[in-house]
Amino acid sequence: MKAQVIVMPKRSVLDPQGAAVREAIHHHGLPSVKAARVGKFIELELDGTETEAQIHEVCRDLLSNPVMEDYELKVQK
Amino acid sequence: MKAQVIVMPKRSVLDPQGAAVREAIHHHGLPSVKAARVGKFIELELDGTETEAQIHEVCRDLLSNPVMEDYELKVQK
Repeated sequence: MKAQVIVMPKRSVLDPQGAAVREAIHHHGLPSVKAARVGKFIELELDGTETEAQIHEVCRDLLSNPVMEDYELKVQK
Repeated sequence: MKAQVIVMPKRSVLDPQGAAVREAIHHHGLPSVKAARVGKFIELELDGTETEAQIHEVCRDLLSNPVMEDYELKVQK
């Protein structure tokens, strides 16, 4: 069983890393990139004995900072 | 138009960040997580004038380090 967690900065929060990536892409010769946002992708391998609520708890308490970030959890059975 | 880029450490490369996340999850009380890998998630907003080959070039040259990382590109029209 696998779980994928995507952690992204909230829309309302400044994302300097995303802005830097956008600028770098422009300098690289691709001005059609209007915006870039950079987050984390975490892949977990699970043995299947945990509940989805437990994984959400880990996402909230450990993998993301709820003040600045949102997370999205996808569990693949 | 949006593009999502997932950059992950290659399977053959040590992922100390992933190992640290796994240990932290174990200490948090969820021993059923057998492995964790941590990568980057980059979301690009595009105006649609670029080719997919150009985005692949940006992924290869700018967003990932091909020696240590693999990337996956998903373009949503």
